[in-house]
Amino acid sequence: MSFEFNIIKKDIATSARLGTMITPHGMVNTPAFMPVGTQGTVKSMLPEEIKKCGAEIILGNTYHLYLRPGHETIKKLGGLHRFMNWDYPILTDSGGFQVYSLGTLRKILPDGVMFHSHIDGSKHFLTPQKAIEVQEALNSDIMMCLDDCTPYPATLKQTKDSLALTIKWAELCRNAKKNENQALFGIVQGGAYLDLRKYAVEKMVKLGFDGYALGGLSVGEPKEMMYEIAGAIAPVLPADKPRYLMGVGTPEDIVFGVACGADLFDCVIPTRSARHGLLFTNSEKIVIKNSRWRESNAPIDETCDCYTCKNYSRAYLRHLFVAGEILAMILNTIHNVRHYMRLMEKIRAALNENRFAEFKNEFLINIRRIVN
Amino acid sequence: MSFEFNIIKKDIATSARLGTMITPHGMVNTPAFMPVGTQGTVKSMLPEEIKKCGAEIILGNTYHLYLRPGHETIKKLGGLHRFMNWDYPILTDSGGFQVYSLGTLRKILPDGVMFHSHIDGSKHFLTPQKAIEVQEALNSDIMMCLDDCTPYPATLKQTKDSLALTIKWAELCRNAKKNENQALFGIVQGGAYLDLRKYAVEKMVKLGFDGYALGGLSVGEPKEMMYEIAGAIAPVLPADKPRYLMGVGTPEDIVFGVACGADLFDCVIPTRSARHGLLFTNSEKIVIKNSRWRESNAPIDETCDCYTCKNYSRAYLRHLFVAGEILAMILNTIHNVRHYMRLMEKIRAALNENRFAEFKNEFLINIRRIVN
Repeated sequence: MSFEFNIIKKDIATSARLGTMITPHGMVNTPAFMPVGTQGTVKSMLPEEIKKCGAEIILGNTYHLYLRPGHETIKKLGGLHRFMNWDYPILTDSGGFQVYSLGTLRKILPDGVMFHSHIDGSKHFLTPQKAIEVQEALNSDIMMCLDDCTPYPATLKQTKDSLALTIKWAELCRNAKKNENQALFGIVQGGAYLDLRKYAVEKMVKLGFDGYALGGLSVGEPKEMMYEIAGAIAPVLPADKPRYLMGVGTPEDIVFGVACGADLFDCVIPTRSARHGLLFTNSEKIVIKNSRWRESNAPIDETCDCYTCKNYSRAYLRHLFVAGEILAMILNTIHNVRHYMRLMEKIRAALNENRFAEFKNEFLINIRRIVN
Repeated sequence: MSFEFNIIKKDIATSARLGTMITPHGMVNTPAFMPVGTQGTVKSMLPEEIKKCGAEIILGNTYHLYLRPGHETIKKLGGLHRFMNWDYPILTDSGGFQVYSLGTLRKILPDGVMFHSHIDGSKHFLTPQKAIEVQEALNSDIMMCLDDCTPYPATLKQTKDSLALTIKWAELCRNAKKNENQALFGIVQGGAYLDLRKYAVEKMVKLGFDGYALGGLSVGEPKEMMYEIAGAIAPVLPADKPRYLMGVGTPEDIVFGVACGADLFDCVIPTRSARHGLLFTNSEKIVIKNSRWRESNAPIDETCDCYTCKNYSRAYLRHLFVAGEILAMILNTIHNVRHYMRLMEKIRAALNENRFAEFKNEFLINIRRIVN
């Protein structure tokens, strides 16, 4: 088994940790953010650009790749890394969350989820065994157990039933796993019920996984609830294994998550926002189509070292966006991904220099200033 | 005046020449193909990728940049090169052809063309003086005279009247030009009438330009007629000035044009085809969405040295295209542009090694084999 997680430093004031994760495709410095490569591509980016932005691991979506081009096809072509020309770590989700998001197109059964493809309506049955089979065909470095994402709101009974399914499926996933070179993470569900969440942690740890994820967050619950659950549960996950806060999030959510002890994050926010012309900076959020940038020779962010900021003006980026040019998406995405990666670099530097709590406070004060 | 054109070698069997063009932004080896950068971007390409593909000069469209973001804006931001981060030669057209293509949205008057913007319907009047003013604001290396593109078919009378306008406007453009660092090319019109074309050459040469273009081709006339006109007129353009076959074309058209003595070409075919999933190779034209590529691990072209062919399979490119991913357009465009640049490199190598006629014959035999 070639998967390892090492903690280099622990913060004194918070639950944050600085670490490294070793995978068959290389090392990942944690806390790490994973850009999302849904369909075998981080939208609008060449793999070399993803790497240049500082990303060390990306996320691939099992649901999408299973439907198109098909996991067997990707396997025949040498696996997902070779297929998409990304020779660094990849984490694949289980397909569970995407299937959950299909709404009325899916039906949860004791042995798996029956769903209809969003592409052609064809019928599929995703079981825990199938989720592992697909992820083994993709040959990702880290696989996720198939879980049943509990919606928000949900009654105690609904949440209990849903969690029972997640726990049962986690065991089936663990037993189905054949490839020793791929790590497998368990997912902690339990909805808005802290006691159920804690019970879930206990059960998952008993089953034993290479890492643990907090799932079922960012599904419509109030932000405070997400913070409460992450704050209560992330710190009680096994200290010697990586902790993954799924689908999180905004820069402030990530800083908060790190303080709770999370090591891994993923979210479509940087890439999707970029395609919609919303650009991140430390001092303001820029809507690039705004006419105030019509003649602005300034880069998006004076303090940013990304390719876009080093070579292009806001005026040019505005022009490309308004003209509907593909290059707008390319350049915007490079900037936003680099912005997220710089955030992770700053977090890791602060941890390394024993000043994370200070960094966090300054960061959150600054964010509040931007929002207000 | 920093514009120079030098002929290095002349072919014995054809009118082809090998040369170099010196501009304020560097040298261009001719015969050269100019990728089209309509709105201040060669669609879906980073400037570094354009250069890596071997392009030494690109074309910018005056009509589009005049309307959006506006030439005054680009001037304030340091000119078109700085605006789009392309520090190599740029040729700008005059806007005449785009305005011609507006059809009923434009009206030709003795002093210029009245037209309505395709973006917002606003009314504009493009005069020869204005065409120069805009191109000087863009600060392109080579400007084109405003011409009246004669439609096909057109009567002798219509063609004569149209040509008279082109000649009058060419003189006005020449007189309006202020910037000594920008070259200005005249455009030879005359429709399908060889005697009018020859008369146009005479008049244009008398006015005196830094280079001469053949315009009004590829506007619906039969292919044979385009070949006949280019074959008769390109060789009689001044031998010591660059000759530009506007809007041409397919690989075979370019090889034919070089044989006629043309030095410069531009066309949207490689970039537009790429976005539509049509990929050029020496042995076949590939429709990438075709299901026969579903599991093909082969590159688009085994003999191609482009980034796409070196790193990606047809199966991956098909997947991206079918999934509607932006990366499909990026990778396809890189390949097609590099394919065109390799063609130009082969043409120049053949000229340099005194075997262009042989190259041309083999090339055309091969093309016929592909088409049939």
